[in-house]
Amino acid sequence: MVEKETTDIFHRGGFYLVQPVRQGHRAGVDAMILASCVPNGFAGRLADLGSGAGAVGLAVLSRCPTAQAILVENSSFMLSFAQKTLAHPDNAAFRRRLSILEADVTLTGRARSEAGLVDNSFDFVIMNPPFNSQTDKVSPDSEKVKAHVMYEGLFDAWLRTAAAIVRPQGNIGLIARPFFIAEILAALKGRFGRVRIVPICPRCSQAAIRVIIVATRASRAGLQLMPPLILHEREANAFTPRADDINNGCLSLWDGV
Amino acid sequence: MVEKETTDIFHRGGFYLVQPVRQGHRAGVDAMILASCVPNGFAGRLADLGSGAGAVGLAVLSRCPTAQAILVENSSFMLSFAQKTLAHPDNAAFRRRLSILEADVTLTGRARSEAGLVDNSFDFVIMNPPFNSQTDKVSPDSEKVKAHVMYEGLFDAWLRTAAAIVRPQGNIGLIARPFFIAEILAALKGRFGRVRIVPICPRCSQAAIRVIIVATRASRAGLQLMPPLILHEREANAFTPRADDINNGCLSLWDGV
Repeated sequence: MVEKETTDIFHRGGFYLVQPVRQGHRAGVDAMILASCVPNGFAGRLADLGSGAGAVGLAVLSRCPTAQAILVENSSFMLSFAQKTLAHPDNAAFRRRLSILEADVTLTGRARSEAGLVDNSFDFVIMNPPFNSQTDKVSPDSEKVKAHVMYEGLFDAWLRTAAAIVRPQGNIGLIARPFFIAEILAALKGRFGRVRIVPICPRCSQAAIRVIIVATRASRAGLQLMPPLILHEREANAFTPRADDINNGCLSLWDGV
Repeated sequence: MVEKETTDIFHRGGFYLVQPVRQGHRAGVDAMILASCVPNGFAGRLADLGSGAGAVGLAVLSRCPTAQAILVENSSFMLSFAQKTLAHPDNAAFRRRLSILEADVTLTGRARSEAGLVDNSFDFVIMNPPFNSQTDKVSPDSEKVKAHVMYEGLFDAWLRTAAAIVRPQGNIGLIARPFFIAEILAALKGRFGRVRIVPICPRCSQAAIRVIIVATRASRAGLQLMPPLILHEREANAFTPRADDINNGCLSLWDGV
């Protein structure tokens, strides 16, 4: 059976993503907002944990012209799309700065290093971990389950790996539902400081539907609750100018605040 | 020595507060915002833990005309001002609905009950716990230290008492620096659910300087990150209309969101 796929344009033609139509995780605005938490001018090594077809890593490379990225993915199904994405002719300019690693993010100790996730080897680690609640309606599609269901201790396992592979004073960034803020802060404790929480609100009078959480390895600075990113004007369905610029790689999440 | 005091007007004359000029904690906008987390029409029994001169409790009674409140304070110095506040002739209308209890909020078990903090006896518990960081500059004034310094485990001790004295499905509300969100969420865990975090931001492009956290005893509902309360317009020093209405008891924190 041939898997149906699409080639989607991001960052107004900045890069292309080959992804499955029905099975697996499809990247969109969440991925673009997450990528925007890497500051402009970032020129180091980035790990995109649970990269899927590579949307977050490519969005960072598209905005940060000297950064390097490794896509880390455990699903061979999604890895095949990361490979197709990398092979797409219009992504040729990124090939020198991008590589793909098949590895399980939840490995520990020597097994993790041997899988290619080496301690202190990244300047920024970014992740879109499976973040739906187990009490949420679970998709019957097993690939979506892999990408979306929150497993017990999952944030802790992912953040343990992130803490190991990022250098001291390096940063991690993740996107999650506000539902999980307490679990994420508990998993960050003792590993990361200078936690910054950015609420993502559909409209200025509505509760956050996502949060971006950025933290710095081995920092002792305190938590900051940043002003929200508002996606839409009060009555409109179109993006606010700031959300549109972030979605298209024109701004980082730290510009204009 | 006679302690200098002021009588300050709140809620545009809704109530008066007698408070010390130099020593102890002086109530202001923080207290009015905290009081605003009690919904309009609240008609139950409220405990104001660490009440000082009584600003938060009186602000709730001023907006909720059938509510009853108990001010709980351990500092005999501040209690004397709560008593003067209650005795103020322009507060006479509140006397039937307001009482004062001298008690240490951090008591446990039978000692807590015997001090008058009876299990399951309140519908809403509100608190402005000492919330400055120990690493912050500490005031040389010992009464300010009592009101402001964050002691190790303090949030846990206060929230343990709040969880004991509020009825199941009753609410607690507190104000704190964002710095302490992780500690507060850890102390809420297993005791409270339906946590709602409201960022208080000086301006719409600035990080929160305070958070209001409201939670429901024995609820299993998840955390919500609410839209921020913005205190000032972008270039102005005056309050935004919403902040002004909240400061003056015309709106609850839940109106207009």
